[in-house]
Amino acid sequence: MTPEAYLEANADRFVDELRAFVRIPSISTDPAYADAIDDAARFVADRMENAGLENVAILPTEGHPLVYADWLHAGDAPTVLVYGHYDVQPADPLEDWASPPFEPEVRDGRLYARGVSDDKGPMVIPLNVAEAFLRTNGGLPVNLKFVIEGEEEMGSAHLAAGVREHRDRLKADVVLSADGAQWRPDLVTVNVANRGIVSLNLSLTTAAKDLHSGRYGGTVANAAHALARLVASFHDETGRVAIAGFYDDVRPPTNAERAAMAAIPFDEAAYLAAVGAASPIGEPGYTTLERQWLRPTLDVNGLGSGYQGPGVKTVIPHRAQAKISCRLVPDQMPERIRALLVRHCERHALGSARIAFADDGIGMPPARVREDHPALAVVEDVLEEVRGARPLRVRMGGSIPICGIFRDALGIETVFLSFSTADEDFHAPNEFFRLASMRTGHIVWARSFERLGRQTAADYAPFRHAG
Amino acid sequence: MTPEAYLEANADRFVDELRAFVRIPSISTDPAYADAIDDAARFVADRMENAGLENVAILPTEGHPLVYADWLHAGDAPTVLVYGHYDVQPADPLEDWASPPFEPEVRDGRLYARGVSDDKGPMVIPLNVAEAFLRTNGGLPVNLKFVIEGEEEMGSAHLAAGVREHRDRLKADVVLSADGAQWRPDLVTVNVANRGIVSLNLSLTTAAKDLHSGRYGGTVANAAHALARLVASFHDETGRVAIAGFYDDVRPPTNAERAAMAAIPFDEAAYLAAVGAASPIGEPGYTTLERQWLRPTLDVNGLGSGYQGPGVKTVIPHRAQAKISCRLVPDQMPERIRALLVRHCERHALGSARIAFADDGIGMPPARVREDHPALAVVEDVLEEVRGARPLRVRMGGSIPICGIFRDALGIETVFLSFSTADEDFHAPNEFFRLASMRTGHIVWARSFERLGRQTAADYAPFRHAG
Repeated sequence: MTPEAYLEANADRFVDELRAFVRIPSISTDPAYADAIDDAARFVADRMENAGLENVAILPTEGHPLVYADWLHAGDAPTVLVYGHYDVQPADPLEDWASPPFEPEVRDGRLYARGVSDDKGPMVIPLNVAEAFLRTNGGLPVNLKFVIEGEEEMGSAHLAAGVREHRDRLKADVVLSADGAQWRPDLVTVNVANRGIVSLNLSLTTAAKDLHSGRYGGTVANAAHALARLVASFHDETGRVAIAGFYDDVRPPTNAERAAMAAIPFDEAAYLAAVGAASPIGEPGYTTLERQWLRPTLDVNGLGSGYQGPGVKTVIPHRAQAKISCRLVPDQMPERIRALLVRHCERHALGSARIAFADDGIGMPPARVREDHPALAVVEDVLEEVRGARPLRVRMGGSIPICGIFRDALGIETVFLSFSTADEDFHAPNEFFRLASMRTGHIVWARSFERLGRQTAADYAPFRHAG
Repeated sequence: MTPEAYLEANADRFVDELRAFVRIPSISTDPAYADAIDDAARFVADRMENAGLENVAILPTEGHPLVYADWLHAGDAPTVLVYGHYDVQPADPLEDWASPPFEPEVRDGRLYARGVSDDKGPMVIPLNVAEAFLRTNGGLPVNLKFVIEGEEEMGSAHLAAGVREHRDRLKADVVLSADGAQWRPDLVTVNVANRGIVSLNLSLTTAAKDLHSGRYGGTVANAAHALARLVASFHDETGRVAIAGFYDDVRPPTNAERAAMAAIPFDEAAYLAAVGAASPIGEPGYTTLERQWLRPTLDVNGLGSGYQGPGVKTVIPHRAQAKISCRLVPDQMPERIRALLVRHCERHALGSARIAFADDGIGMPPARVREDHPALAVVEDVLEEVRGARPLRVRMGGSIPICGIFRDALGIETVFLSFSTADEDFHAPNEFFRLASMRTGHIVWARSFERLGRQTAADYAPFRHAG
């Protein structure tokens, strides 16, 4: 029996196992679910044992544990590190679920449950595939390692430290991520880049206390006015970021990149209508998709000053705050952008306002896999073979911490191979996973392992970063 | 015995009566003190009866009652309506009081208690003076009416309706207000103007919900940015209000007014240091005192958008709010300024933002007593005689509703004759009233009644507004 035949023969059992997995309410952010987190880590470890993987271990961190397993008997073949996560988002608002979030139910070929698309369904696929190879061939075409974390839904706060601590055990040639949704159900795509991020909390003070607007109005500075003027200075009239030096390190898109992007079907009107926005905005000279994927941004995520309750309170606010974050593209570095932001605020704040910054520690460089990366080529070839269309290379406007974490700690790239789709309502009520994606995923992961096994670890040496 | 001798002979009793009055915790804004409000109204009515006043009545309103009394046997002499209030501010933070707020205590010639300066101490002075005339002369030099309200500390919400309802009973030639503090303890002053006010709550929407700043950043409008740009447009670079037409109706100050104001001792550095402001700001070409008294303002009293909690939330806010208020000077009218503000916002909001306004009903025209008003002349002459210096005419940056209420309902001006001083910590812990002010007040009110009694009601006809 071939591995693919084994996967087909055991398809129902794999769905049953996924149902058992999603019954565990492993909500990482809520301490009330600590036992469920332990249960989910244990479930993954047991699943790894049953699949025939070796060196199964639950590795403690300062937060929720990492679950590890490997099979390392493929000689010179590359070592593939599979990433996924066993934790899930909170389920509320519960009343909006058609079936209870932790009681999985199949409707129209979709399995409904919290965490089934993000990331339990996609995550068990490579485990099932490993089992299929080990049970049928007695071995895998590649050296295989798994690292499954329990804090992805709360920001992966302890992943970097955990990976650094276990860097010898986790050493590999490439990461294949089972997390990271496909862009759209109607397109075959592979994600090759995501934006970085840096953030800054700004506070601004104009006096020792809020002042009576009658007694002091028109004579002392108003913090709300000073903040508004500063925030207004962040962009020019056209929508371009006006922080001096902000675009210095941005790699201009090539004509080929722009042409490829222009060829991607994208309905701007539907995109805007879906979020209730009246018209597109943004940096002049770029399309909406280019703005989202190729260009950096500056957004104020929140601001506040003075009285915000009901009715009227005639004060002159003496304090104002703003939370600022930038999405970064190659080769912008978080530390430099943060410094430019601080300098801009210091130069543009009115003389009567004192400003201060709180560094909240959020900083993540942009990530982009090299176009000629050998694992990317494998994934693209297999997707084309199985799904009948060459996948489009797409990017993400958001930021994914794992790319930087694995690059910094292990010196390797991350290639995304997830069978979640962005429309599956993860982080929302009625999350679901297309069961058809599971079968496709089995085949794609199995063939990817086979093709990666025809490569050698040495093929990856040129793509290694200083770890 | 003369009225003044009577006042001196009964000085200790008047202090004892004030002590009893301030023991009543008549906090108008807190429904828990409803009984105390009733007790205070009753106390005032009893005090009026004991003083020998007539037609004492507790007049119900939609809120706390008005207390009324009169003595109307002075023939052609003017009719003076005395205004004051029996309600007080809340007393918290209680732990900051050196003695409990409703247990009056004398220290260094100051009586400490909540409400003793605002307005119970100043308010009993004309009652004591009326008693002195009635007990010694058997009559008053003027026709006298009292209207004492119970909602001043919560915005006098039902005073206008109450005055309109009882306009026949309250008909008079002038209001003398026992409320409205003197500017400074080191200067003899009389307040001749206060600024009006108009306010507007603005909300601005750019999408149907907050959006992920990675997935949408750089492509759709951010409500915080749109609000900041709008707020920044309210003033020009110099600090002048940039709303088209805003200054159209402002009466330019005369050279005489500016000279008089420049002669008033005012320590700008101390003024700024007291509130922790680094430097003065405001409309170019005016001094700080001119900006505060003569010039209109626009202040954002509060604004908010997006995430304001701890840490980071990478959203694009879809909604933003701002509370805006303007202090007005003659002859700016609230309705016109509100319309100009709305038009400005509609013209300056970015195309991608939808704006809406909530009219919170706050609108009060500026007030200014005519310089040749006969009651103002009396008060100034008596103050000069008693205190040894011609009082300086000063203004208030704040807004006092009673001026407009009495002008609109009764067609008459309000002249301020309060013996509270602005440094007596009303609205704060350890409110106090200088007992010396009570004796000065007795003499000033008594002599004012006498001089007003030498005028006739006909003298006031030219100063009457269309009521």
